[in-house]
Amino acid sequence: MIDVYSVLSQVREKKPLVHHLTNWVTIYDCAQITRATGALPVMAHAPEEVEEMVSLAGALVLNIGTLTTEFIDSMVLAGRKANEKGIPVILDAVGAGATKFRTEKSLELMEKVRFAVIKGNSSEIGTLAGAKALTRGVEAESVEGSLKELAAKLAKERNCAVVITGPEDIVSNGEKTFGVKNGHKMMGKVVGTGCMAASVLGAFNAVETDSLKASVSALVAYEIAGEIAAQKTNKPMQFKLELMDSLALLKKEDLKKAKIQEL
Amino acid sequence: MIDVYSVLSQVREKKPLVHHLTNWVTIYDCAQITRATGALPVMAHAPEEVEEMVSLAGALVLNIGTLTTEFIDSMVLAGRKANEKGIPVILDAVGAGATKFRTEKSLELMEKVRFAVIKGNSSEIGTLAGAKALTRGVEAESVEGSLKELAAKLAKERNCAVVITGPEDIVSNGEKTFGVKNGHKMMGKVVGTGCMAASVLGAFNAVETDSLKASVSALVAYEIAGEIAAQKTNKPMQFKLELMDSLALLKKEDLKKAKIQEL
Amino acid sequence: MIDVYSVLSQVREKKPLVHHLTNWVTIYDCAQITRATGALPVMAHAPEEVEEMVSLAGALVLNIGTLTTEFIDSMVLAGRKANEKGIPVILDAVGAGATKFRTEKSLELMEKVRFAVIKGNSSEIGTLAGAKALTRGVEAESVEGSLKELAAKLAKERNCAVVITGPEDIVSNGEKTFGVKNGHKMMGKVVGTGCMAASVLGAFNAVETDSLKASVSALVAYEIAGEIAAQKTNKPMQFKLELMDSLALLKKEDLKKAKIQEL
Repeated sequence: MIDVYSVLSQVREKKPLVHHLTNWVTIYDCAQITRATGALPVMAHAPEEVEEMVSLAGALVLNIGTLTTEFIDSMVLAGRKANEKGIPVILDAVGAGATKFRTEKSLELMEKVRFAVIKGNSSEIGTLAGAKALTRGVEAESVEGSLKELAAKLAKERNCAVVITGPEDIVSNGEKTFGVKNGHKMMGKVVGTGCMAASVLGAFNAVETDSLKASVSALVAYEIAGEIAAQKTNKPMQFKLELMDSLALLKKEDLKKAKIQEL
Repeated sequence: MIDVYSVLSQVREKKPLVHHLTNWVTIYDCAQITRATGALPVMAHAPEEVEEMVSLAGALVLNIGTLTTEFIDSMVLAGRKANEKGIPVILDAVGAGATKFRTEKSLELMEKVRFAVIKGNSSEIGTLAGAKALTRGVEAESVEGSLKELAAKLAKERNCAVVITGPEDIVSNGEKTFGVKNGHKMMGKVVGTGCMAASVLGAFNAVETDSLKASVSALVAYEIAGEIAAQKTNKPMQFKLELMDSLALLKKEDLKKAKIQEL
Repeated sequence: MIDVYSVLSQVREKKPLVHHLTNWVTIYDCAQITRATGALPVMAHAPEEVEEMVSLAGALVLNIGTLTTEFIDSMVLAGRKANEKGIPVILDAVGAGATKFRTEKSLELMEKVRFAVIKGNSSEIGTLAGAKALTRGVEAESVEGSLKELAAKLAKERNCAVVITGPEDIVSNGEKTFGVKNGHKMMGKVVGTGCMAASVLGAFNAVETDSLKASVSALVAYEIAGEIAAQKTNKPMQFKLELMDSLALLKKEDLKKAKIQEL
């Protein structure tokens, strides 16, 4: 079985720098959830510095939530340098499928940068895997086909791990596919839980080279923190704080609640 | 009398997408308060996608808090497309009157886009209505003339609803004018309460075509949430969280506290 | 001894406007902590308006956390206008030393704008003082030499106050140097505490022309708020809220905990 605590412990011990180019809505949450894992966040997007900054980092997170053409160009610079240095890169394809621009820019990133993990909700990943899918703003509306097969297909095509978040998360590297059934519906009541998941994926992939194992571990730890938070409050914003703080204070025994199964 | 709960219920049921081009200070709060109404927020500002994104939306909120020339250009693109599609557009004229740039760009937006609601504090609306007014940063300092008359004048000129926020909010469509005396002085202790009001206006106007009724309802629901929050804490940031969460959990009976009168 | 309460009282009474050009990660926290001091924040960065906006302000805070070339250009415009008007300017040199771009742009700002206060962690200030220093993202990794001497050296060179934040803060104007031993290690568990310190420095320098006295007072008030917060919770995000709220509610007697000594 996957030893989630061992990966979390490495994050806490090694304190990797996780470089983000992310959106302006949840940028603080991305930074703080990274800090809550034990890693150190840095946000920097100027084309003059992204290559130097990512060279200091253990992982790079690219989140297209409030993309512009110039911002994507900086992402490509950072991503290519990360590839050159062997630093894992995470894509959070926020809103892919909602507009042509988001879909095209996601595909452009996937052409120009080799990702360790591509992450999205069902319609975002469906869109990138070429399925018929509908994204409404940043929410999954519908997708045709089996999520397991879509994840495995995209993982094979891009030679990476693919994460589909949802009531059951799907994580596939094209050969093996896991389902993670942790988390709580309160996570859907508050803005930013999807973006934070990508940052946690960054922190865990910074210390564990097996991106399937790293990604399953990241989701389990993050979502168990969500379960703990949901026991404390039914208020959305108070829940978000408890989620962030529960991850920071997560103990080995908490991880016994892991619900991982091979699909 | 205006049935606030019926409008809130429609927001919760229809979950309209509320597209924002807003400022970088309170962008998270705008998104989360939208979520708290039951609507779904999306933030997108690239000129390549704003027209397509707004076409998916039930309302568009334009908040000029950290405006640039390019950002206003994207607002015009989104606003015109919204006009074409019959999607209501809300203007939050943050800081109009503080600098020439803000005043001119607000007027430019009002020339190029037809608004369903123009919202600001007394000096911001005073400035846009052509009164002698002083805005200090983003705070109302002074304004000459009756707020009721200024609101009605601007509403007639622009054929829209005008909202002036303050201890008593004024809402006018040029023919009818209402005062809303809900809210709490704690709302002035924390950054973002004005911006969040505009987002709630967006959510309510997305489901109710009578912009006067929608706007009064939005203010009442939002400010009663503020009253509930103020009963729980005197700490500003804790108050902000309680405000957001109280709106998410607002019950029909809470709305009995509505203090609406025709002026 | 420095009368911290008297400076805080002036902030609360005069409610100076504190104009920020800051980073997109902690921009809300910068605004709200400014509000918590009793001052009023305004964020504006468009080159068309920064000179007019800063002319309304009592202080200007320049924080390079997510700098771009254009953003630095706006900072120079605002800073020069502030210099012309005698408005104190604070530099928070976030990440100086981490990339060439950050170091060069910090030096460019120091050439073009006269600062009342230059603030950073040990490696950021070390970098700007010409010492051998290593910054990892936005974290101090190492610096050679005595912090007291580095602060005094840079203060003399730039004719300003220099603040080095850390377990003991160092504040020097080149002639006198103080150490401040307030604060709590919880402040290192949450993103944004460094940026918020710079905003508090802005608010205090807006009402007190002796930048050494203003800066020591700012750090003492802010960090005692941190101590109060740490007594209430060991959860990072809950701590951040308590810190902000404790500053808003700080009482004269709380300031008895001040730990200031001349070094």
